Amino acid sequence: MQFTLAVTDSASKARAGVITTDHGIIQTPIFMPVGTAGSVKAVHQRELENDIHAQIILGNTYHLFLRPGLTVLEKAGGLHRFNGWQHPILTDSGGYQVYSLSGTRKIKEEGVTFQSHIDGSRHLFTPEYVMDIQRIIGADIIMAFDECAPYPCEYGYARRSMEMTHRWLQRCCDRFDQTPPRYGYSQALFPIVQGSVYKDLRTQSAETIASFEREGNAIGGLSVGEPADMMYELTELVCGILPASKPRYLMGVGTPANILESIALGVDMFDCVMPTRNARNGMLFTTQGIINIKNERWKSDFSPIDETLGGYASTFYTKAYLRHLVVSNEYLAAQIASVHNLTFYLWLARQAREKILEGNFLPWKNQMVKQVMQRL
Amino acid sequence: MQFTLAVTDSASKARAGVITTDHGIIQTPIFMPVGTAGSVKAVHQRELENDIHAQIILGNTYHLFLRPGLTVLEKAGGLHRFNGWQHPILTDSGGYQVYSLSGTRKIKEEGVTFQSHIDGSRHLFTPEYVMDIQRIIGADIIMAFDECAPYPCEYGYARRSMEMTHRWLQRCCDRFDQTPPRYGYSQALFPIVQGSVYKDLRTQSAETIASFEREGNAIGGLSVGEPADMMYELTELVCGILPASKPRYLMGVGTPANILESIALGVDMFDCVMPTRNARNGMLFTTQGIINIKNERWKSDFSPIDETLGGYASTFYTKAYLRHLVVSNEYLAAQIASVHNLTFYLWLARQAREKILEGNFLPWKNQMVKQVMQRL
Repeated sequence: MQFTLAVTDSASKARAGVITTDHGIIQTPIFMPVGTAGSVKAVHQRELENDIHAQIILGNTYHLFLRPGLTVLEKAGGLHRFNGWQHPILTDSGGYQVYSLSGTRKIKEEGVTFQSHIDGSRHLFTPEYVMDIQRIIGADIIMAFDECAPYPCEYGYARRSMEMTHRWLQRCCDRFDQTPPRYGYSQALFPIVQGSVYKDLRTQSAETIASFEREGNAIGGLSVGEPADMMYELTELVCGILPASKPRYLMGVGTPANILESIALGVDMFDCVMPTRNARNGMLFTTQGIINIKNERWKSDFSPIDETLGGYASTFYTKAYLRHLVVSNEYLAAQIASVHNLTFYLWLARQAREKILEGNFLPWKNQMVKQVMQRL
Repeated sequence: MQFTLAVTDSASKARAGVITTDHGIIQTPIFMPVGTAGSVKAVHQRELENDIHAQIILGNTYHLFLRPGLTVLEKAGGLHRFNGWQHPILTDSGGYQVYSLSGTRKIKEEGVTFQSHIDGSRHLFTPEYVMDIQRIIGADIIMAFDECAPYPCEYGYARRSMEMTHRWLQRCCDRFDQTPPRYGYSQALFPIVQGSVYKDLRTQSAETIASFEREGNAIGGLSVGEPADMMYELTELVCGILPASKPRYLMGVGTPANILESIALGVDMFDCVMPTRNARNGMLFTTQGIINIKNERWKSDFSPIDETLGGYASTFYTKAYLRHLVVSNEYLAAQIASVHNLTFYLWLARQAREKILEGNFLPWKNQMVKQVMQRL
């Protein structure tokens, strides 16, 4: 994996770059649609490619480990061949889901024992095993196994948790460096900065993570309930420590405004379930603002969902038709809204990149944050 | 609407023809995907057109009347403009759903009073009103309002029900002939043969329906639980009475075998929820036979769903991936399986037509009935 920084904005810390992987390039800043169980919910693979213009998607180690399981994934030749997505894939380490989805779970120095949320079966994730699993999944970018501290979190717990995450990172790196990729293309390991909302811990964690000198770095444990300003402050702090020569990935973020503000702070990669999850609830992000399509207001609005945006879902279907589908609980509602919202998120990232390259990112960002977050 | 008979098979009663409507042509025999509430469940409109090669889809008067309702449909300029499907549409009269879905319903000579299954609101469907509603929906082919007798059905009830259906038909025709289409393109009215499983009633009904000399004729009240042989016998009987110069539509039928056998008896048009409903339960119809994709057998089968068939869903995705999606309750499971099954149904109709035109339909049909109905 290679990262080339094309431009750093003079008025902000925004950057435009290119990540090159064996499955193709990623132009940053980038938003990565979440394909939890090997499928971006309600979206066909060709829609991801041709309509949404996704360049990289996420898979989730916890979900893929449970279903379809490692035997099937290995027989398939990895996730790319299993789901037919031939562009880059990043896998989350599974840590977050172990904490949020599984029943009884126990975090020890060795790793985490947990019960499957599907059938109650018991499993142990260690840093080493999570590396092995992600090797088998075959993601282009794999994430270190960490503990994502909750919010709010007492200082002592946050410190101990961060320190264990750092020790686990060493074990992840050791295992990763001792094992080859499975399917003939290279994989990169990204460590994750933790430290909750404490600046001294975040500083310490960012310095530690940077010292591992991996091919990219991630910021975890944010957007978990803390105020947005606190998230921005910590993101800025951490971005100032993580090397400029490596891509920076802010995990699980966020709203269109969160993404634009974080790009301004020097973040290059984002993922979030918001565009797809909110789509399934009838919430649309558009170039003009946010639409609750269930609202009576859209009942007879026969204009396209968002003509500015381009792409089939956003321009072929009307607001009134989509409203009808949502109200009628039709499958197609989730399909149209999901493709549309992802098309918007990828458009936003592309626009941001263009503005950075053109040298006028900051005024555009300040205007867009207001425009895209207003409720229509 | 115009119907041109191209070829009638010499070894069977199968026919190949062309229906011309203001929204384009339909090559018969044809299968019509069911788009109950203005959407073929889990299928995008462009998939219907480009992958499935649908030529006409169904809408349902009962569902569309309740949601989005006539005001929205009329403002939109009819269903074609509302859902973006620019090819022919046929609407069911709503009678079947009034009987099967709504709560308290009362059938009187005047019409049927019923309660919405959505909000319990009370409505009265008369033959006249159902014509008005279908005028507003703007379907190319609209169906007469009938009573679909249940199975089994006592002779006396079947006779009285049939006679009322005939009286209702006169009222449908009167209203239809006194009212113009709404959106500048013509509409055709198809009456429906009833008479339960009684040959004398079916004969009488077919003769009555034929005497109305509408642009096409339908056979209703079959495939409601009676043995397949009885359905074929009655279909043959009715097809022998309905004029050869008009298209014949066997409503709500059926399995691939039902369709092939009924084509051999002289039926031209079919609709059924089976390909989409069964898709959502993981049952796939393929050129090689029937697949229960949940079966362990497909877990590591990385071959395409059905390569013979062509089309994105059937050739891009593998059986193992689809199985994983079905088991994991992913939206994409219903999407892939629905597009696939409909692609198969339309392929089957196209193949039948080709064989009729080539003059070798019967041996092909006899072989295909076995092939496509075997469980893999």
